[in-house]
Amino acid sequence: MFLGISIVHQFDLSHKQLNTWIQINLGWGFTIMFCVYTCSKTSGGHLNPAISLMFYTIGKLPLAHVFYYIIAQVLGAFVGTALAYTVYLDQTYHVLGNARIVAGPNGTASLFTSMPAPHLSNTIAFWDQFVGTGFLALFACVIIDKRNEIPSYMHALLFGLLVAMIGMAFGMNLGYPINPARDFAPRVFAALIGYGWEVFSYHNYYFWIPILAPCFGAIAAAWSYFIFVGFQIPDQPPNYMKENKSDADGIPLKTTYVRDLA
Amino acid sequence: MFLGISIVHQFDLSHKQLNTWIQINLGWGFTIMFCVYTCSKTSGGHLNPAISLMFYTIGKLPLAHVFYYIIAQVLGAFVGTALAYTVYLDQTYHVLGNARIVAGPNGTASLFTSMPAPHLSNTIAFWDQFVGTGFLALFACVIIDKRNEIPSYMHALLFGLLVAMIGMAFGMNLGYPINPARDFAPRVFAALIGYGWEVFSYHNYYFWIPILAPCFGAIAAAWSYFIFVGFQIPDQPPNYMKENKSDADGIPLKTTYVRDLA
Amino acid sequence: MFLGISIVHQFDLSHKQLNTWIQINLGWGFTIMFCVYTCSKTSGGHLNPAISLMFYTIGKLPLAHVFYYIIAQVLGAFVGTALAYTVYLDQTYHVLGNARIVAGPNGTASLFTSMPAPHLSNTIAFWDQFVGTGFLALFACVIIDKRNEIPSYMHALLFGLLVAMIGMAFGMNLGYPINPARDFAPRVFAALIGYGWEVFSYHNYYFWIPILAPCFGAIAAAWSYFIFVGFQIPDQPPNYMKENKSDADGIPLKTTYVRDLA
Amino acid sequence: MFLGISIVHQFDLSHKQLNTWIQINLGWGFTIMFCVYTCSKTSGGHLNPAISLMFYTIGKLPLAHVFYYIIAQVLGAFVGTALAYTVYLDQTYHVLGNARIVAGPNGTASLFTSMPAPHLSNTIAFWDQFVGTGFLALFACVIIDKRNEIPSYMHALLFGLLVAMIGMAFGMNLGYPINPARDFAPRVFAALIGYGWEVFSYHNYYFWIPILAPCFGAIAAAWSYFIFVGFQIPDQPPNYMKENKSDADGIPLKTTYVRDLA
Repeated sequence: MFLGISIVHQFDLSHKQLNTWIQINLGWGFTIMFCVYTCSKTSGGHLNPAISLMFYTIGKLPLAHVFYYIIAQVLGAFVGTALAYTVYLDQTYHVLGNARIVAGPNGTASLFTSMPAPHLSNTIAFWDQFVGTGFLALFACVIIDKRNEIPSYMHALLFGLLVAMIGMAFGMNLGYPINPARDFAPRVFAALIGYGWEVFSYHNYYFWIPILAPCFGAIAAAWSYFIFVGFQIPDQPPNYMKENKSDADGIPLKTTYVRDLA
Repeated sequence: MFLGISIVHQFDLSHKQLNTWIQINLGWGFTIMFCVYTCSKTSGGHLNPAISLMFYTIGKLPLAHVFYYIIAQVLGAFVGTALAYTVYLDQTYHVLGNARIVAGPNGTASLFTSMPAPHLSNTIAFWDQFVGTGFLALFACVIIDKRNEIPSYMHALLFGLLVAMIGMAFGMNLGYPINPARDFAPRVFAALIGYGWEVFSYHNYYFWIPILAPCFGAIAAAWSYFIFVGFQIPDQPPNYMKENKSDADGIPLKTTYVRDLA
Repeated sequence: MFLGISIVHQFDLSHKQLNTWIQINLGWGFTIMFCVYTCSKTSGGHLNPAISLMFYTIGKLPLAHVFYYIIAQVLGAFVGTALAYTVYLDQTYHVLGNARIVAGPNGTASLFTSMPAPHLSNTIAFWDQFVGTGFLALFACVIIDKRNEIPSYMHALLFGLLVAMIGMAFGMNLGYPINPARDFAPRVFAALIGYGWEVFSYHNYYFWIPILAPCFGAIAAAWSYFIFVGFQIPDQPPNYMKENKSDADGIPLKTTYVRDLA
Repeated sequence: MFLGISIVHQFDLSHKQLNTWIQINLGWGFTIMFCVYTCSKTSGGHLNPAISLMFYTIGKLPLAHVFYYIIAQVLGAFVGTALAYTVYLDQTYHVLGNARIVAGPNGTASLFTSMPAPHLSNTIAFWDQFVGTGFLALFACVIIDKRNEIPSYMHALLFGLLVAMIGMAFGMNLGYPINPARDFAPRVFAALIGYGWEVFSYHNYYFWIPILAPCFGAIAAAWSYFIFVGFQIPDQPPNYMKENKSDADGIPLKTTYVRDLA
């Protein structure tokens, strides 16, 4: 079932490339927001393999679930890319004709997936993905940490703004994949519709960077959060429960029964 | 009475075409937001015939109401277009003079209604409208599903962001009508002020596509939601009813069963 | 005291003209939002003479208060314009030198106040202001109507988005003054710093239009709202009063009769 | 610990300069928003020395804390700048080569810190910073003033919009430093990577202006708020407290115990 949803969601992820940059960031952010709203009840809003993996490492998700989720996410991204391709079929043909050039001045594979500019080294690309996904994971932990007392209906809204913010900050290098599924699946689709193997071999087999770097970044960031920030917040769950009448530090009380992500 | 409101609301819908694209999307989104806030108490925020029809198919709206709503929506869109035309009367005359050319390099009928580019086939146009309105209906179901526990005062805000998001994602082909009333009524108005019958016959009688496709798309999406997502959420209706006896129509009550993303 | 606040607030209102249009709309919206947050407790967020007058006509504000508010609003706008002028003193000198030309290709008076283009008739200008301020007043009524149950902490946020939305929709003709104080006070300031009497006589004494039209528009819209929408909402004031005795200031309390979109 | 967080946060602060202006404002605003969310529990969201100093003057923060915070903020901004520099290392090299010119037509030091244009006098620069940070502090007081009843989970969101708004209004002169740590630390970093002493001596030792002016501005604004607005709001804690008892349905309770950021 989650697969079905995921397919639909990932649809949006590959057809914003002709818009202006600010639009992409905001549009993508809103898209993520509604996707999280949609599947927050069925799968917990997992759309990103790196984030799913992170939840496993902090013990919030069984390993088997991680595998199911990742498969669904990649399949969903693939089907979504295909659907988006059909909607813009005429438009693409009108602009590109039958040319399928991966990179260079006339390259168009970046319509589907991230394609680093030649002057960008793979080391920096890895670092960029590591840090970008790290921020995503870090702030995701902040949002869902129940001690920060953000109401659950604000979570999806904040996730959307978060993705828009990361796009604004990090997009210049690679167009912020920060999601292995979102980068890999459209790359496979692009290879199938005529771009060929070069989408993988391009830039010294760059394609594995947006797959691995986000995972490392997300895990490192999540652990940083729990070590540096998490231990600093006085959480006192028992007192908290008891004391909600006299709450001394300004929480908009959602009363004791609120159980959040954590 | 609803007619009166509707007229006022639809006013905004036809005079943003000279602005930049990002502005259109955000502006339209905010407009929808305030319209839904305004009439959420009288008609339930129904501004779109496709969405009204969808609510009928899922049994939330009597058929008679659907007809009344659609008539009001089309009339409202027509009067609103006329009002907007008067506000920009001088500006339009200054730019266009007396020329009323439907399409082509100097065509201006797209100021009023959607006009597909020649390279776009009607099949793709139908598909575009089907999918675009489908997402609108899908996320609308998400927003109003009481099991997602989104407070009612957030609904209109989210509807606005939703429309802006769809515009950012799908606007490139047709300018996202996704609303039969919004597309058809201004088209009639354009025909009356001098564009003539060609606004209907243009592009092989394209005009019926943004009328029918949104209806099919909305219904398909709503059913998808209820089949794939709706059945997956544990909703416990009996307990729910008991605990909040007076709640008969879908408020996201924050009650004890609040379980979040996890 | 309100005067002091008002001065500070209106500061922002005259120095955004060199930015891009989308920025102006969003920036202005956010500015209004924070201004309303600031003075919502002292004066009820009154920053606009037209809106204050409207509240008088629906019996929510004594006539004497209206006069005090309007005087404070005009004085505040004047001092604010002067402050903004000092902050951008060097920048303005760098761009303009000593030239102070009211209108035409090199005219710069529109940095301070609204200056209609020559092809725009005063009739349309009046209508534009009437309708624009009308929408502002209409949606303001929607936001503060306690029966719409919008939490009071959302009000200022929505007012900000509302102003941004009106700017996006109506800004093309005149730059949306929609506020007599905001238009008149900077005009006086512009006259004093060297633009002279022409800022008043320009365009056949256009200057009175953004003073009178918003007042008529706001009053007409507010009455429309209460006649067409207000009477349609089941409000049950007696129960409401009883259930929330302490609510004396229009906070939309979420009580049991919350009925939603569905 | 706070140091660690601060480092991460300030990361974002120096690499948005190649984007468009609207994007910078929104991106920065969102960044601030998530930073405040992150550290609101550990340090109360203090990211700005001027604001920390302001809280000392109104008796909400011990002097020793102010010193610790300022040291952490400056160190954090320095490390953050260094991290951002590494992420965009290739990109920077690609655009700039090895040139490190502080100012003039080819100057690039403004990528790191604020560099006033030659036609801007230091007096106006001081005034601009004084007023800009003053608004930041003023509205910060509004947001955290418990009598305005803004739920604490909205605070960070509003701070973000506030920074975006100030950027839209005041950014034209200097790019709105409004934060001594954010301006000084990247300036030191820029000096170390090859720009040299000139980043300090430039424009008649301008560098101390964005350090001192924000502090004076923040203090003046905060005191203005408490004198002119603060005394006007009826706060009546006892009655309010008593009346709120019956709230059983999760409204973010507006009660007197709301103590926030301060």
